[in-house]
Amino acid sequence: MMKNIPVPTIERLSALYALLCRMDKEGTQTLSSKKIGGIMGISPYTVRKDINYLTGSGKEAGYSVRELMDSLYVLFGLEKERKACIVGMGRLGCAIMNFCQNTEENIKIVAGFDSNINVIETLESSIPVFPACDIPEIVRSMDIGIGVITVPPNHAQITADRLIKGGVKGIINFAPVVIRSDNEDITIKNFHIMEEFRTLSIMMDQKEKEKRHGQDI
Amino acid sequence: MMKNIPVPTIERLSALYALLCRMDKEGTQTLSSKKIGGIMGISPYTVRKDINYLTGSGKEAGYSVRELMDSLYVLFGLEKERKACIVGMGRLGCAIMNFCQNTEENIKIVAGFDSNINVIETLESSIPVFPACDIPEIVRSMDIGIGVITVPPNHAQITADRLIKGGVKGIINFAPVVIRSDNEDITIKNFHIMEEFRTLSIMMDQKEKEKRHGQDI
Repeated sequence: MMKNIPVPTIERLSALYALLCRMDKEGTQTLSSKKIGGIMGISPYTVRKDINYLTGSGKEAGYSVRELMDSLYVLFGLEKERKACIVGMGRLGCAIMNFCQNTEENIKIVAGFDSNINVIETLESSIPVFPACDIPEIVRSMDIGIGVITVPPNHAQITADRLIKGGVKGIINFAPVVIRSDNEDITIKNFHIMEEFRTLSIMMDQKEKEKRHGQDI
Repeated sequence: MMKNIPVPTIERLSALYALLCRMDKEGTQTLSSKKIGGIMGISPYTVRKDINYLTGSGKEAGYSVRELMDSLYVLFGLEKERKACIVGMGRLGCAIMNFCQNTEENIKIVAGFDSNINVIETLESSIPVFPACDIPEIVRSMDIGIGVITVPPNHAQITADRLIKGGVKGIINFAPVVIRSDNEDITIKNFHIMEEFRTLSIMMDQKEKEKRHGQDI
């Protein structure tokens, strides 16, 4: 029985899975918690604690890359294919669709939506694109589990409500507002590109301060 | 003197800053660590520990939204305007440029680059777009501090090398490969959209398991 894993640990283990896939392709067979921590910018202790959720035992000496990958794959249910749709076929929506079509992940984009009839009629897309007002019925009939929101901020919450009405259980929101649901069965990830910039800016500022401090001594 | 803040804390404080901006706009004047933790999905203890880096004292009762915002703004150096460029003017690059132009953040996109001369000549953009081979000299002459990479994966590392040669100190990489630099002065954030999907998928899987487990009892 899997223990209930905290969200930050899930995020680190998800990043670890990506690292392992890359290392496996490069031919690396084992990795120590120290090496993993060094690449991911976290402490070896945190690495072992995270992996502990998985195997029940943290090792300092080295993990088998392939074994760890396989454990994560099964435990995280990555063998399940999940059907997803994108709402908002602007630049970001189309860019995400391209990413998803060129990946080995278990996410399959099966439908797009847009509120602009011209977009729907002129978009050259290999997947069907429908009017946004039809979201609930299309999502239900195609059994779509994940909705990706790339609409303008003022349409994000109503889009989420329509997706949830259709039965999605997961939403990734790229619009620069926070969307919410009172339904505890729904998992929502709000992703804001500007926060990436702010975090980078803060990290740069820290390095600049450290450097100035170093020169003062 | 600011203590050296760990990266996960920086990321949480950056998210907290975004939350405070929103709350301030909505008219909220104070927030407790419990309330903040509830919205951000972390424990009140972690909230107080994070804010402790900032003020030197964690409070359970309630923080002034405006005071906390101002402290974060100053301490994180958000008053500094940072000039940035985008390399790869495809859909994602253009989408990010739009985001940055419609925000109050301290990031200013001042140049774009692309390796395709047709893109450079036909793109309707309010900022100048240059050939990718000119990155080092343009970055240096315009004093650009941040580079955003939205090129295909096989061009990501060489793009990073050119940006660093020109003098950028921070890079956000959206190409689905990890880019590296041996130069410790450079801050790199690798962001992979597919990891957002994987994390969501894992969180959904956890909820499904919890629900099945609940029904078994």
